[in-house]
Amino acid sequence: MDLRPRIQTSFDRQSMMQTFGAQLDAVAPGQVTLSAPILPGSLQQQGFAHAALTFGLGDSAAGYAALTTIPEDQEVVTAEIKINLTAPATGDRLVARGRVVKPGRRLIVVTSEVVCVANGDETLVAILQGTMVPVPA
Amino acid sequence: MDLRPRIQTSFDRQSMMQTFGAQLDAVAPGQVTLSAPILPGSLQQQGFAHAALTFGLGDSAAGYAALTTIPEDQEVVTAEIKINLTAPATGDRLVARGRVVKPGRRLIVVTSEVVCVANGDETLVAILQGTMVPVPA
Amino acid sequence: MDLRPRIQTSFDRQSMMQTFGAQLDAVAPGQVTLSAPILPGSLQQQGFAHAALTFGLGDSAAGYAALTTIPEDQEVVTAEIKINLTAPATGDRLVARGRVVKPGRRLIVVTSEVVCVANGDETLVAILQGTMVPVPA
Amino acid sequence: MDLRPRIQTSFDRQSMMQTFGAQLDAVAPGQVTLSAPILPGSLQQQGFAHAALTFGLGDSAAGYAALTTIPEDQEVVTAEIKINLTAPATGDRLVARGRVVKPGRRLIVVTSEVVCVANGDETLVAILQGTMVPVPA
Repeated sequence: MDLRPRIQTSFDRQSMMQTFGAQLDAVAPGQVTLSAPILPGSLQQQGFAHAALTFGLGDSAAGYAALTTIPEDQEVVTAEIKINLTAPATGDRLVARGRVVKPGRRLIVVTSEVVCVANGDETLVAILQGTMVPVPA
Repeated sequence: MDLRPRIQTSFDRQSMMQTFGAQLDAVAPGQVTLSAPILPGSLQQQGFAHAALTFGLGDSAAGYAALTTIPEDQEVVTAEIKINLTAPATGDRLVARGRVVKPGRRLIVVTSEVVCVANGDETLVAILQGTMVPVPA
Repeated sequence: MDLRPRIQTSFDRQSMMQTFGAQLDAVAPGQVTLSAPILPGSLQQQGFAHAALTFGLGDSAAGYAALTTIPEDQEVVTAEIKINLTAPATGDRLVARGRVVKPGRRLIVVTSEVVCVANGDETLVAILQGTMVPVPA
Repeated sequence: MDLRPRIQTSFDRQSMMQTFGAQLDAVAPGQVTLSAPILPGSLQQQGFAHAALTFGLGDSAAGYAALTTIPEDQEVVTAEIKINLTAPATGDRLVARGRVVKPGRRLIVVTSEVVCVANGDETLVAILQGTMVPVPA
């Protein structure tokens, strides 16, 4: 099964990802990478990327990582997720890497990390840990 | 001290809040209410409000609640926050109510709840619990 | 239905609650209160109650609050829970009050607060927010 | 600097660790491993290890990992931590491995994983993500 088209189709239906200018970078079983520029409309009061952007990318990367592990007739929704912000998010681009820690039919435990990239150097800006739940598509 | 102008000034500098169409509804010591419509560009793949919007409003309401409790020469940043999503976010508008549970000079513990409003009825869509940290403005 | 015997029976089977010297104080639909002394064997390195005690009471109060909302042939287990510690836990006794925020057949969202009591005064020592999952008894 | 004695001294002052029968297994910069048997007094209602034990080990391993990264005249306390439970904890022994994700003077972001060991096989039973705060010793 080619996982990519399934994830891309769902991703393309998320208008928030378009608002953020996000793209789907890589898909593998249990692992998905997304990224987005830090747009002028995605900032907080000090001029860094807003936590809603960092969260949105980290949550979506984790959710899509979960989606790669469940049957085609199901979607996932986030039941809960927690974010620790580790540095101001600045630079050229944010990259979010989601990963399934524990697959399951009822609950899927996920993590993701979000880095900002400036001049080719990565800085960790957030880690997330949460629970995705399969629902009928 | 009138708290409102301080919060409004910081709020107006968050371009993400403008992208979300959000507004500052109410400010009291240790409590802030924000709201936003569910714009066409703020959706997830099933047509509900994206978790990034729900999170962004809940996190900002909690952060501004914290800001009402600290000296004027300080800002707050989110150290960490956790969201439990309790229902699909749909309807006319999301309203986020942030509250300080435990003020502090180093750490401020906050919660917030986010509801969606449809035809005048409120449905709880998320609760958040987190930690804000004062930093020099 | 009398909720108390059901909760008491499950509580009595938790040997950890006996190790902690904990007792079941109050049971109502969606709300349970537990308490425990701070025993000499329940301390951290500075002489305060260990976070494992605070967590154990808060988690159990939340779990039993959830148990009051589901059919008799089911148990609950904690899927995830987060604790913010707001003050050192000291004094005569810890009291944990659990509450159901959002009941459900698959996921039950809960919160609890833990206070320490000294000379009749309560101090908030922790708040918790989490997810309980019904499983066959 | 030999990190081990510092961690061992603090560990030995935690009476809860003795109640749990826990021991300090390994110490390296930013990483600490603890373990404990599943004692008859550490169980929940279904006979598995109580979440308070799993949490207590995971939290302490993360806290001691943080302690390896700060000056000798400081201690750490847990500001907040979140646990996702991934499997029932049973078998011979629980092992908790804590790790510093982001060191800092004010906040230290940590994670830990807890496994149960039965007949030499490890099963992941929990992951934790949290924040430790340095305080004067």
